[in-house]
Amino acid sequence: VQSPNSGDAQTGRVGQTDEFEAIDRLRARFEAAARGRFPDGTRPPAGDTWIGDDAAVVTVEATEQAGKALLATDLVVEGVHVDLALCTLDDVGYKALMVTVSDLAAMGARPEYATVSIAGPMGTDIDQLGAGLAAAAEETGCVLVGGDLSQSPTLVVSTAAFGVLHGGPGLGPLLRSGARPGDRLFVTGPLGGSAAGLRLLRSEGIAEDPATAALLRAYRRPVARLVEGETARLSGATAAIDISDGLVADSGHLAGASGVGIALDRLPVVEGGTREEALHGGEEYELLIATGEPDRLVGAFEAAGLRPPVPIGVCVTHTGLATLDGQPLSPGGWRHRF
Amino acid sequence: VQSPNSGDAQTGRVGQTDEFEAIDRLRARFEAAARGRFPDGTRPPAGDTWIGDDAAVVTVEATEQAGKALLATDLVVEGVHVDLALCTLDDVGYKALMVTVSDLAAMGARPEYATVSIAGPMGTDIDQLGAGLAAAAEETGCVLVGGDLSQSPTLVVSTAAFGVLHGGPGLGPLLRSGARPGDRLFVTGPLGGSAAGLRLLRSEGIAEDPATAALLRAYRRPVARLVEGETARLSGATAAIDISDGLVADSGHLAGASGVGIALDRLPVVEGGTREEALHGGEEYELLIATGEPDRLVGAFEAAGLRPPVPIGVCVTHTGLATLDGQPLSPGGWRHRF
Repeated sequence: VQSPNSGDAQTGRVGQTDEFEAIDRLRARFEAAARGRFPDGTRPPAGDTWIGDDAAVVTVEATEQAGKALLATDLVVEGVHVDLALCTLDDVGYKALMVTVSDLAAMGARPEYATVSIAGPMGTDIDQLGAGLAAAAEETGCVLVGGDLSQSPTLVVSTAAFGVLHGGPGLGPLLRSGARPGDRLFVTGPLGGSAAGLRLLRSEGIAEDPATAALLRAYRRPVARLVEGETARLSGATAAIDISDGLVADSGHLAGASGVGIALDRLPVVEGGTREEALHGGEEYELLIATGEPDRLVGAFEAAGLRPPVPIGVCVTHTGLATLDGQPLSPGGWRHRF
Repeated sequence: VQSPNSGDAQTGRVGQTDEFEAIDRLRARFEAAARGRFPDGTRPPAGDTWIGDDAAVVTVEATEQAGKALLATDLVVEGVHVDLALCTLDDVGYKALMVTVSDLAAMGARPEYATVSIAGPMGTDIDQLGAGLAAAAEETGCVLVGGDLSQSPTLVVSTAAFGVLHGGPGLGPLLRSGARPGDRLFVTGPLGGSAAGLRLLRSEGIAEDPATAALLRAYRRPVARLVEGETARLSGATAAIDISDGLVADSGHLAGASGVGIALDRLPVVEGGTREEALHGGEEYELLIATGEPDRLVGAFEAAGLRPPVPIGVCVTHTGLATLDGQPLSPGGWRHRF
């Protein structure tokens, strides 16, 4: 009873359900989604405990990288990362897990388990949010094993994921810091989709064509490039980052961590997107990959049945920011300020 | 640049610093706090990566419970769990990590690594928040290895922790569901401190005496009972839960999970607290422990130099809610509503 400060007085919305009932339904939904990882059953393996205790107990698979685990967290805030007038709570839940899984994809890792913290106003449809979380969990094979629910005037959904490295004995994670001068740079697909989708959703009248639908999907249901990240790691890539802050900003992060410069000679813009959106859009989860063995990367993507990686430039010895066709790119990109 | 919806327009506060600068300072602070776990150095061990990449890479210690890991998450919301008029941002950070570590304490586990998601308004002093997080990390030996920062109209701090079980070969975690009829019940200390502290902070004029100071500390700087939880687990306890929702509510959770009833015959109220605060206060992190070997528990606490556990009752065969001195206790406790 120490939580009397929020509630109807702040939101004017009537609570439909209480915390423990909502958790029971989330639990059932998340267990069902575990068929993405445990096809023979959706209950925890013997000795494991998912939702329902103080903490989850999980079995960590033995991998070739014995003893190494990966931890990632990310969050989605209403009015900042998602506009509830332009997407559903189902989309918010989906995105909230995908953004964190994308961080593991950028390391070449696989997500094993995740937890979710949901803070939202009275009247928030927790079941709809849970449906999106469960969809992302099932698609990525990441089991949602725990979480917490709280009232809050603003909807904030934070996920944390635990991942491991599969395959490639002794091969570590794909860091931001491994790129070397001369490495070729690739992206896993054309850029700017999420920003273009948001622009269309805010405009008057949206065309009904496949390109438009793809842009809306890029904004509402971005997909983490898990297979691409692992394939890059296993084919000798030297560095990777997910393009969550925009190509220019994230190129800068990779360049800074690796102590290289980045010379871009191509900017793949998504159909229906703009150059600006491709450079600075962010909130999309294509990967930027550096490799000293470009043919091997392209061959591995082909062998895995993936869309070919798009070559966009090269790492150079100068440290600092990126250039495109020799012109400096202003940093840009979104920075939260405090 | 897809995050244009929040910021000064909403808060009227001026951003002092940007996200990446704030992260750099948090990183330094969290690395320094790692001396709680790595006394010889505050940099990641070789091959590990903490803050600074898409995800953290950590080494999972081999324990007697090979392959088992624990995951927990919890969150603190401004105006719901903490009142910023009554505590500092340092306190909020401290509490935000402790609440999650407390979930691991209730399993008899040790926290190894944690991540933190911070969503807060412009003007939020991220450094002060980080100081509290770092203090809790150092005290508990839990290394903060990653996180995310975002703007948000409401301050929400969510932490996720990864833990392991030490000692007791083959001995699993302390679940809520293991209590059996006849088991004795203990709490790790008198109850109601956090609620009493909040009441005092909201009242006019606060006395300056040690009992009052202890209550204020219970509200502002609650401490997870890590050693108590592990000691209980290693001395044959059958079940445990942390009292985050209040004694009556959390007794009900343990009773429900274990299929027992709970007959309390004693209510240890903290000095300066009320019966109501001890029954329903919550937001405090004493543990409720069930054991079929009470003498062994008491002896183990003594051997570990801990405050003696306080006997409060017994598990009975009836399933359902708790009674105190034979009188039913109304469920009470805080439930978030949606």
